[in-house]
Amino acid sequence: MTDPKAGSLTPLLDSINSPDDLKKLSREQLPELSKELRDEIVRVCSVGGLHLASSLGATDLIVALHYVLQSPRDRILFDVGHQAYAHKILTGRRAQMPTIKKEGGLSGFTKVSESPHDAITVGHASTSLANALGMAMARDALGQDYHVAAVIGDGSLTGGMALAALNTIGDLQRKMLIVLNDNEMSISENVGAMNKFMRGLQVQKWFQEGEGAGKKAVESISKPLASFMSRAKNSTRHFFDPASVNPFAAMGVRYVGPVDGHNVQELVWLLERLVDLDGPTILHVVTKKGKGLSYAEADPITWHGPAKFDPATGEVAPGGGAYSWSAAFGDAVTELAAMDPRVFVITPAMREGSGLVNYSRVHPHRYLDVGIAEEVAVTTAAGMALQGLKPIVAIYSSFLQRAYDQVLHDVAIEHLDVIFAIDRAGIVGADGATHNGVFDLSFLRGIPGVKIGLPKDAAELRGMLRAAQRLGGPVAIRYPRGNTLRVPEGTWPDLEWGTWERLRPGEDVVLLAGGKALEYALAAAEGRPGVGVVNARFVKPLDETLLREVAVRARVIITVEDNTVVGGFGSAVLETLNRLGLKADVHVLGIPDEFQEHATVDSVHARTGIDAAAIRRVLDDLGVADAASGNALT
Amino acid sequence: MTDPKAGSLTPLLDSINSPDDLKKLSREQLPELSKELRDEIVRVCSVGGLHLASSLGATDLIVALHYVLQSPRDRILFDVGHQAYAHKILTGRRAQMPTIKKEGGLSGFTKVSESPHDAITVGHASTSLANALGMAMARDALGQDYHVAAVIGDGSLTGGMALAALNTIGDLQRKMLIVLNDNEMSISENVGAMNKFMRGLQVQKWFQEGEGAGKKAVESISKPLASFMSRAKNSTRHFFDPASVNPFAAMGVRYVGPVDGHNVQELVWLLERLVDLDGPTILHVVTKKGKGLSYAEADPITWHGPAKFDPATGEVAPGGGAYSWSAAFGDAVTELAAMDPRVFVITPAMREGSGLVNYSRVHPHRYLDVGIAEEVAVTTAAGMALQGLKPIVAIYSSFLQRAYDQVLHDVAIEHLDVIFAIDRAGIVGADGATHNGVFDLSFLRGIPGVKIGLPKDAAELRGMLRAAQRLGGPVAIRYPRGNTLRVPEGTWPDLEWGTWERLRPGEDVVLLAGGKALEYALAAAEGRPGVGVVNARFVKPLDETLLREVAVRARVIITVEDNTVVGGFGSAVLETLNRLGLKADVHVLGIPDEFQEHATVDSVHARTGIDAAAIRRVLDDLGVADAASGNALT
Repeated sequence: MTDPKAGSLTPLLDSINSPDDLKKLSREQLPELSKELRDEIVRVCSVGGLHLASSLGATDLIVALHYVLQSPRDRILFDVGHQAYAHKILTGRRAQMPTIKKEGGLSGFTKVSESPHDAITVGHASTSLANALGMAMARDALGQDYHVAAVIGDGSLTGGMALAALNTIGDLQRKMLIVLNDNEMSISENVGAMNKFMRGLQVQKWFQEGEGAGKKAVESISKPLASFMSRAKNSTRHFFDPASVNPFAAMGVRYVGPVDGHNVQELVWLLERLVDLDGPTILHVVTKKGKGLSYAEADPITWHGPAKFDPATGEVAPGGGAYSWSAAFGDAVTELAAMDPRVFVITPAMREGSGLVNYSRVHPHRYLDVGIAEEVAVTTAAGMALQGLKPIVAIYSSFLQRAYDQVLHDVAIEHLDVIFAIDRAGIVGADGATHNGVFDLSFLRGIPGVKIGLPKDAAELRGMLRAAQRLGGPVAIRYPRGNTLRVPEGTWPDLEWGTWERLRPGEDVVLLAGGKALEYALAAAEGRPGVGVVNARFVKPLDETLLREVAVRARVIITVEDNTVVGGFGSAVLETLNRLGLKADVHVLGIPDEFQEHATVDSVHARTGIDAAAIRRVLDDLGVADAASGNALT
Repeated sequence: MTDPKAGSLTPLLDSINSPDDLKKLSREQLPELSKELRDEIVRVCSVGGLHLASSLGATDLIVALHYVLQSPRDRILFDVGHQAYAHKILTGRRAQMPTIKKEGGLSGFTKVSESPHDAITVGHASTSLANALGMAMARDALGQDYHVAAVIGDGSLTGGMALAALNTIGDLQRKMLIVLNDNEMSISENVGAMNKFMRGLQVQKWFQEGEGAGKKAVESISKPLASFMSRAKNSTRHFFDPASVNPFAAMGVRYVGPVDGHNVQELVWLLERLVDLDGPTILHVVTKKGKGLSYAEADPITWHGPAKFDPATGEVAPGGGAYSWSAAFGDAVTELAAMDPRVFVITPAMREGSGLVNYSRVHPHRYLDVGIAEEVAVTTAAGMALQGLKPIVAIYSSFLQRAYDQVLHDVAIEHLDVIFAIDRAGIVGADGATHNGVFDLSFLRGIPGVKIGLPKDAAELRGMLRAAQRLGGPVAIRYPRGNTLRVPEGTWPDLEWGTWERLRPGEDVVLLAGGKALEYALAAAEGRPGVGVVNARFVKPLDETLLREVAVRARVIITVEDNTVVGGFGSAVLETLNRLGLKADVHVLGIPDEFQEHATVDSVHARTGIDAAAIRRVLDDLGVADAASGNALT
């Protein structure tokens, strides 16, 4: 695939197996290479489920960076890392691209263990600046000499830790380059004042004045600031103005831009001049998500991570009409807000992913997107709860990790009425270790007064939302990536918080499981009369009454969860039995104490031993035969 | 105390029991009231251990806020909340001030359950802006009408979540007032680019041009911006400039300042005009920590929270010469850095508290204070580790909660060599619920690959630091507030990570405890030959070999920890015994699953049942008599 051959659609790309190969091209060839790369990315992504639009938008930039910098000696950091497909292709991983996000294949993000060219292992936003600062300080402390360049999107930049890192970067004045990849989007549309400010800069569009004007301003960069400033004309002041004209410059970071992020030759020209400057520099680059693909440019939210599609026409394969947990939450909360004017829904930049598109239209005045700032989402909810609202924070499990202290310090200490609707709990599959939501039961369980529920279906999710509202205090309701069954409008089952539900009566071995794990438990118990199944839908508080009943009568208890076994649901059962002075044989099945690489959800559940087949094997080991074998215990 | 009486040192203050009383004073009386308040605060604080300097600095501002606003209807939020002593005194709590930070007495911070005037319960920094935003949105959503004013220090403002909240505040344009209480300090000296920028503003000192100039500029505030801007003279542009002249204005927040934070009449005049403006406004107020107390003004770091002192002379009662855990860490790491050039120490604004003053002098080029930004501290360490350094993050347990995701996502997934030196682990006492470090064992234990140790003394701390360096990967070493024994320079005991230590041989009942809890276990076992004690100094991994030995032979195992019993050390023991298939009677002693209010450390340990007396009671219940009673079991 990487041998050049006549008639190839990608003759330039065929010659490149490393950044060194890239440098053999002339600058004039770079635009064509970018085009080949984009075509390749579209082909790769047409199988569905990949990060298309952002990768297309960053391609020219990545070509320019690898043309100028010497990776892996120089460190190129990609914030979030899902926009780095061109980087993977240019650094020797082209042949493996069809394996991306598949088990044993390439990660969907950059990953240190995958390639020496991947400077950071990442998935969560806003980490690249602090990482880059640490690298620049390590370089200086060890007396080394290499470049550090962080590529960060405008959405990620407004995350708290990125802004705080920028504050320190401006202070310490270490040599480093920050490329602000400004596409006016995170996954949803961007929000926030910094975003408005960046839009203001873009309106200036200095780079449209032609390469000449841009070059003239940039040629002055290496001259002393005072001299440059006195000579600078008003017309170029936004192009390069080290004074307090914008937040970056005000924080002490040299600001250059905005420039066209798709003019790869001008980017090369600029980067060559910027990388050797002392101190920190921000290059503000304007890109288009979905660049080069008309249908993706027109609708970058849909094309952020499209399903399988025809690259020629943009026709997307029809979905199965499945009803996702996110949709189930969105529908429920849209109804709930209609019933209760105090309901207010907050998302940290995940309107689409959290099923809130319709909600945000129906209840626009009780909807807030704070951008990629989970800490702000939670503490804003605290403020709302203190003043009489009933806020619901819709958040992915993995991202809630960012706001652990805010849940504890800002919400739980005063036992405020905040509901956490935790999506993507458990194994998420293709996004891998950075995105798995397998810690929430453990970290939330330790926070005093936080109630935790795991609904088995959309109806139970609604029951829990209503019960949470009645109860007050902080409540976490967690549900997995994937689908559930649609329920009729107006379904609001009555549910008492903390009560488990016996779904199968067997009493030899009893399976305790909630949420996704309950499906496996039920399937495993099928045809084995001796096996009871309890819907352990509440992890905090547990149903001590039912647990006691089970512990007294069952030979063996098996807990099943899609959370780490360290401090999770199984531990809660062990703690409770110990506290109640009950002896029981307990088998704890759950995610083992190691990070789980990307693969399908089913595959991870199989290899970690929590799916139906795995549970059946445990039952077999315990001598619980199925009915067919004729020696079932009852 | 609140009745006016002849000859009182505080005649004005004596007349005030609520903000309503305050409003009966004339503006001309306010400076005198402020002085009385400051004198009162100095008297209150002279007993030692209280937040003197910051409270003195904020007094004029608090008087002005309560004079203009109608608390509790209007919400006044104090970031961190330790500067609000004047607020407590003015809102009916003067008589209780001598109880502050004592068991059953007032909190050292603002606390919702303590007074309707306390808008938020707080202790950690940088939360006030998100809380205030939530309150403003709740007000608007519920069709109500009150003011929301957040008082935030310059140190807190540069925390990530404050900057991210500001970004959203600038976007949403809700009516609210942010008072930037700029004293150039957090607890340490402030760092960061925003800080430099604020210093730049201060140099302008527009307010020194006299009240007239300030008034003229401010009178224009309510006029349309365009009109004002066209009329504004250059000389006032820093005083009120809504354009992109500074980061606040660039983010869409109206900026007014800087003004003298000790001119209470001018503050009142300004606040009256600012509170009714639409949209968000920042009033930048310059104050002096320790205001009015010469020795505190001169050395606000020492006087941030001084020991007992003589208010007249500033003479501080001599310390006991005790050797704190913080000092033990500081000494150890100063030596360690001398031995290994890759050691680099990072603190989030806690140089003094973490024992790093000497380190920062001896190794200035391998020391970084990132300001109040725990997330940045951890991820900067990750970047350093990726590039060959051996960073050590010195952090309080309670503040590490802020960086839970960074430990997991940025450090643990790639198993980077970052050591977390966790100070103030366990109960901290007087600072109460917001500052107790009783969750770290639970939240860290669930993160794959993080090793956790609890040294019993300074020597073991050093042994763990060396062992951690040898091992690599993320390592957490946690130690309590309080004192330990000094060890000679060069003490570097050899310690194998994961090995427990049998300190007393008894085998009837065996106490497993590490760190602070080990002291209690040893004291409780004293004189009871049947009681064994194991120094369970490693919580992850546990010493499974020794645990197995103990479980097989002991009648009862008692675990003791100064961490929550939910998911903590006791749970680790239960999980391990269950996994190993060992049955044992286990009593888990630890902090119960509720927030612990302020009191002395000893008192909290007594009431939560983990101190020596409490353990003895458990031993008594188990029938383990002491030797003196003649029926000891052996």
